[in-house]
Amino acid sequence: MPVLVMKFGGTSVADLGRIKNAALKVRREVERGYDVIVIVSAMSGKTNELVGWVNETSPFYDAREYDAVVSSGENVTAGLMALTLQEMDIPARSWQGWQVPILTTSAHGAARFLDIPRANIDQKFAEGMKVAVVAGFQGVSPEGRITTLGRGGSDTTAVAFAAAFGAERCDIYTDVDGVYTTDPRITSKARKLDRIAFEEMLELASLGAKVLQTRSVELAMRYKVKLRVLSSFEDCDETSGTLVCDEEDIMESKAVAGIAFSRDEAKMTLVTVEDRPGIAAAIFGPLAEAGVNVDMIVQNISEENFRDHKGGVTDMTFSCPVDQVKRAEKAMADARARGDIKYDELVVDTDVAKVSVVGIGMRSHAGVAARMFRALASEGINIKVITTSEIKISVLIDRKYMELAVQALHDAFELDKAS
Amino acid sequence: MPVLVMKFGGTSVADLGRIKNAALKVRREVERGYDVIVIVSAMSGKTNELVGWVNETSPFYDAREYDAVVSSGENVTAGLMALTLQEMDIPARSWQGWQVPILTTSAHGAARFLDIPRANIDQKFAEGMKVAVVAGFQGVSPEGRITTLGRGGSDTTAVAFAAAFGAERCDIYTDVDGVYTTDPRITSKARKLDRIAFEEMLELASLGAKVLQTRSVELAMRYKVKLRVLSSFEDCDETSGTLVCDEEDIMESKAVAGIAFSRDEAKMTLVTVEDRPGIAAAIFGPLAEAGVNVDMIVQNISEENFRDHKGGVTDMTFSCPVDQVKRAEKAMADARARGDIKYDELVVDTDVAKVSVVGIGMRSHAGVAARMFRALASEGINIKVITTSEIKISVLIDRKYMELAVQALHDAFELDKAS
Repeated sequence: MPVLVMKFGGTSVADLGRIKNAALKVRREVERGYDVIVIVSAMSGKTNELVGWVNETSPFYDAREYDAVVSSGENVTAGLMALTLQEMDIPARSWQGWQVPILTTSAHGAARFLDIPRANIDQKFAEGMKVAVVAGFQGVSPEGRITTLGRGGSDTTAVAFAAAFGAERCDIYTDVDGVYTTDPRITSKARKLDRIAFEEMLELASLGAKVLQTRSVELAMRYKVKLRVLSSFEDCDETSGTLVCDEEDIMESKAVAGIAFSRDEAKMTLVTVEDRPGIAAAIFGPLAEAGVNVDMIVQNISEENFRDHKGGVTDMTFSCPVDQVKRAEKAMADARARGDIKYDELVVDTDVAKVSVVGIGMRSHAGVAARMFRALASEGINIKVITTSEIKISVLIDRKYMELAVQALHDAFELDKAS
Repeated sequence: MPVLVMKFGGTSVADLGRIKNAALKVRREVERGYDVIVIVSAMSGKTNELVGWVNETSPFYDAREYDAVVSSGENVTAGLMALTLQEMDIPARSWQGWQVPILTTSAHGAARFLDIPRANIDQKFAEGMKVAVVAGFQGVSPEGRITTLGRGGSDTTAVAFAAAFGAERCDIYTDVDGVYTTDPRITSKARKLDRIAFEEMLELASLGAKVLQTRSVELAMRYKVKLRVLSSFEDCDETSGTLVCDEEDIMESKAVAGIAFSRDEAKMTLVTVEDRPGIAAAIFGPLAEAGVNVDMIVQNISEENFRDHKGGVTDMTFSCPVDQVKRAEKAMADARARGDIKYDELVVDTDVAKVSVVGIGMRSHAGVAARMFRALASEGINIKVITTSEIKISVLIDRKYMELAVQALHDAFELDKAS
């Protein structure tokens, strides 16, 4: 029998009615002839309740006990889903992480998969079980302790099962009906994509399109698991949602697939830093240690210094989430106090946003950057920082222009039209 | 190190504050030099929530899934208790049933212990763990599925661990401070017992003194585990609560240890039943199949029949909980309709209560029954049915006299005085 993996997130199993609704979608796939592996999250709100109790009990908790407590939410959903399927006369049973077993590292709270042996579940499929309902987000360590994969880990569980069982596809049911060219709240012209490449999805996910957890996309890319994102709350057929797949499976070849954005960015510039080997490490080492997630980095000779012929100095600009600015300032001041770095001043701009165009087509289409900059210029939007990768161009702009920029770029690349 | 087992019920771990309170009691025992095994129930209300979901999902549920869902409540408490102890710098960890492992039969919802291998927990004690926090009420079947022991099973888990680990004592922390001579709500003269024999506790438990689950007392009796019942909500020392122990460990030897009662009983009499071999089976077989818990049974030749020289007939009287009367009536009517039994009528009295005096001293003290009947007679209380066992005498009386009877018997046997 071909195997299909279906994953339902917390809002999709938030109460018994929604679990039943999800079970109906599972039944449809069983009727189509699949052996189905269902991955479930905790009922929404439950994980937060459990995490709250752990934090209140022990601010610096033993991560092994955290995992033992927090994993229980998924176990409850798995049992209830199995019962719901049985009520529909579908042979189903629940599997907790240790029962499969889902073998992971001992990195509690952020465990990685070691192996998912198929034998136990395969045997039950052979005996007539049609649906294995697996508790997501959890596993068991070599020491026999319960582990969790970290928040959003159920997506990753689903992809790992799809890889282990050679599933035809991994369907991620969520509260949106697919991946869009950009956030429909910014422009009503946003269009649902039928297909998107893994690499594009990765850039969109990490840039703030919170549909799929980045790690699950990475895993799907590595094992070439076809991932589909679709809505729990709509009737779906085989063409619903968005298929995240290998580049080769995408016929259309637009230069740009989507526009991502991140509203709450800050731009920080260290003015007149020594330009010497190791200076980048001296700056970004302390920032990393302080827990600052540095995103864009630009180094340039400052105009002023150039004019004044002060050799051997540079300006260093970087961006980070706006709520990490205080931490970044302290890390830099401390490094200067220790004598590890020198700079004249740290200029902070907390009113910026990041806008990015993403597309694998960029590799073969010339002029994407020029078209992007022209579109922004024609709206009078000043670009403060630019960074590029093979399939992405990102700019920092004043926050107040963010929506305008997204709309202008969406129009410029004609994303409202199917290719 | 001597081992102590401590069990905390649902109200004793109802929230984080109470878990902390319980942990303080554990710390005291660790400081006294014990290796402690703590058995925890689910936070009160949690099990009911889970059971409610299962019942709503699937009225005739798969008991294996029921167990997988319902057992999660204890897992949460176990993790939180371990964290709370760690916060007090006590080396502690949680154990779920499958991790110990607690091996049980596959009778889901009512599993029985097969074995509790000590190796895993003993190894951790040897490595410096001071407290093993074990999720009560659960185990794992030979098929690797999660089992539960049925309601109140955490008491039984505690006793089983005490037996397996040769514990010095098994302390059951609950919301009362011990076992009383009778319910203090009936008479303010009720006195807490320092000690009570297993056999007496069994009679009191099954008669309605809901302090300990009957099965846990049976298990304690079989393995000679010293059980202590004491309050979670009071400061306790080594002499607090009530010790449930072997008869030989009790110095005092009063004839009667306590007065039990059961308010909502019904008395049913089948009038003019054939008196032939197999008639009892023909009556009580159908009642058992209908789920009627028959308690007292009395068979006698009815006076009237005797007078009229109608040989070969008898009256059969039995008692059952008042809410099972309808079921009993239907079972008897059906049996008569099938021709399995004959009777003139079924007389039902739904206004009776049962009062029992219990004591191992009865074996050596003559005249307990006479003293009991005299005490009731002097209050003008008519006795409707009497049954006796080696250590118990029970009577059915009109319900309105129940409190009066308990008070009169408590006085007659001088239970307010320590022996």
